[in-house]
Amino acid sequence: MPDDLDLDLDVIAAVVRPLVAQAGVIALRWFRTDVAVDDKGGRHGFDPVTVADRDIEAFLRGELSHRFPDHQIVGEEQGTSGPPSRARWLIDPIDGTKAFVTGVPAWGILVGLVVDDRPVAGWAHQPYLGETFEAVGGVGTFDHDGRRRPLGTSTTTELASAALYSTHPSMFESPPDHTAFDRLSGLVRLQRFGGDCYSYCLLALGHIDLVVETGMQPYDIVPLIPIIEAAGGVVTDRDGEQAVNGGFIVAAATPELHARALEVVQVRA
Amino acid sequence: MPDDLDLDLDVIAAVVRPLVAQAGVIALRWFRTDVAVDDKGGRHGFDPVTVADRDIEAFLRGELSHRFPDHQIVGEEQGTSGPPSRARWLIDPIDGTKAFVTGVPAWGILVGLVVDDRPVAGWAHQPYLGETFEAVGGVGTFDHDGRRRPLGTSTTTELASAALYSTHPSMFESPPDHTAFDRLSGLVRLQRFGGDCYSYCLLALGHIDLVVETGMQPYDIVPLIPIIEAAGGVVTDRDGEQAVNGGFIVAAATPELHARALEVVQVRA
Repeated sequence: MPDDLDLDLDVIAAVVRPLVAQAGVIALRWFRTDVAVDDKGGRHGFDPVTVADRDIEAFLRGELSHRFPDHQIVGEEQGTSGPPSRARWLIDPIDGTKAFVTGVPAWGILVGLVVDDRPVAGWAHQPYLGETFEAVGGVGTFDHDGRRRPLGTSTTTELASAALYSTHPSMFESPPDHTAFDRLSGLVRLQRFGGDCYSYCLLALGHIDLVVETGMQPYDIVPLIPIIEAAGGVVTDRDGEQAVNGGFIVAAATPELHARALEVVQVRA
Repeated sequence: MPDDLDLDLDVIAAVVRPLVAQAGVIALRWFRTDVAVDDKGGRHGFDPVTVADRDIEAFLRGELSHRFPDHQIVGEEQGTSGPPSRARWLIDPIDGTKAFVTGVPAWGILVGLVVDDRPVAGWAHQPYLGETFEAVGGVGTFDHDGRRRPLGTSTTTELASAALYSTHPSMFESPPDHTAFDRLSGLVRLQRFGGDCYSYCLLALGHIDLVVETGMQPYDIVPLIPIIEAAGGVVTDRDGEQAVNGGFIVAAATPELHARALEVVQVRA
């Protein structure tokens, strides 16, 4: 493993930005068409995957491995490729495939870069909305059809003022998770389901205050960590440890709100 | 009440289309801003309303009462105005205010026309997406940024192949509703929450197969009935009666799927 890793994040961003946009073009070829939906199965029942997921991951993996042959690449559909490296790319080609196959524009294309286990850059692209959420070296940007502005979370510090999102209640089916989620839901101002990665993006844009989810994979959350942090938010696992390994995730607009949410979900039944 | 009501739906559509578009412009002035959110309260907890809801309803009510002074107008925020009439307009200025105040573009501006208790025209407009779902005299159209195509539901007839949407599980908190919803959820291929009016729109576009909700008001559902029906779908209340009065609503892509869903939700615990 080379230890002379010399990464210029601005150069990397200039390479990745157009790749993410091209991935969006591929996605829109299949979105709201009669795309065939396969079932990956698994313990949570129906788990759809489409040719769009596979095409996008193959495209991004091919381009990234060509540009960065010394880096490792991990994707949802096609596993790990490339040499062991201090630099690791994570790809979720379509985060929110259930939204994708039902025409709901709340899915996203996620790409993240981890160096020495620290997420240093992330992209979430929603091509139907023409939106890209980007964070590179701690600077977060929202791009809507070419109009760019900084990301920024809300200033909400109290649970009683917070809007909480989670993708689906089935995430909390184990009794302790169910209890923790119910307790938190009862304390917030507004609780909604749906959203997948897009909820974290709206957290980084200041409209959602809290996102709590379980069963997250590294490729689900790693690309979003730099985005949330660059916007001023805090994201950890339930134990307050770094979120890079996925699992039970708590993302909040402010450190105060994060501490309050963590306190509630840490009390196990 | 005059019985010489002579309605030319094409003329009416030419009047309403630009009004709905202008209402969308008003909505976008407030969407994703720090718009103040008031709480209307009520038995289901936090029920947000904003100046956007009030401005849009006042605008549409003013314009419709000016163009159609003999018609009655019913809106979510400002009640009923105009004389008793065989022609009645229903307005939901922002259907999905919780989505609106959290930046999620799944809300819509709803306008419907009922003549002799029969919904004859409806509009659902999502200005952030540039989408309008329209049905006039049985003809359904989807307009995306000026590109128009016919509405059309999916051909799904089996629950095991169906994608089911509902806005939130709290809709089904009474034990018989909870049992009915759980039973239905267990039989479909995919079940998701979120969406408000937009789920019915995606039903009319062929991407969602089934929408089941409770506690609907007439202004929530009446504008959507012509859209669902013009697309080839079926929408009734839980007893299979017309949906114009709201309540427990079952909307399906095909008559077969509707019959199967109705059978499941009619078995009361």
